[in-house]
Amino acid sequence: MPAKLALIVRSDLGMSKGKIAAQVAHAAVDAALRNQRTTPFAAWLRDGQPKVVLRLDGADELEELCAAAEAAGLPVERIRDAGRTQVAPGTLTCCAIGPAPEEDVDRVVKELTLL
Amino acid sequence: MPAKLALIVRSDLGMSKGKIAAQVAHAAVDAALRNQRTTPFAAWLRDGQPKVVLRLDGADELEELCAAAEAAGLPVERIRDAGRTQVAPGTLTCCAIGPAPEEDVDRVVKELTLL
Repeated sequence: MPAKLALIVRSDLGMSKGKIAAQVAHAAVDAALRNQRTTPFAAWLRDGQPKVVLRLDGADELEELCAAAEAAGLPVERIRDAGRTQVAPGTLTCCAIGPAPEEDVDRVVKELTLL
Repeated sequence: MPAKLALIVRSDLGMSKGKIAAQVAHAAVDAALRNQRTTPFAAWLRDGQPKVVLRLDGADELEELCAAAEAAGLPVERIRDAGRTQVAPGTLTCCAIGPAPEEDVDRVVKELTLL
């Protein structure tokens, strides 16, 4: 079964391209390290790490999405920024959902748009 | 000794923010998985994954940087895009250098600018 990693980033924080990339990379690394013994992870790695980067406005909205993903049994990593640059310390900037079966991930993120 | 991961992305390809984030995440995941048994990796993870996202124009320039990092004994991951969107298949889009001792990474990337 194909697996996928969704990376969802807040677009309401005014982060630069580089800042966004660093936050998304952090989420992807945490998701990979934490789930590397799972069956979906093995499929995901073999298929070239399919991933999608999506956007969403607001901390509450991102938290709701994370909760919905967890309720669906999916692995979730939340990234809170250390706040040395651009955003306040502890700000929720993005999250990772997966690697998990593609259709399960798609069900949770289907209303989001690409970054 | 503090460790660091440098992620260097080509800024001459006209990639979108989301595309850049996906490529950088791919490089970071490869770097983390490949080097997770090393001493610098343990320090890097403990310190909250310090990373920097830098820019550089041109495939030849990026390849030269990778070769210089390898010559310095640093771990390097090159990311070539599958080319389904935005760029031609096999295009070198970005690379990861590290996680490795901060001063060794800085020596190789010191002339680059933040993305």
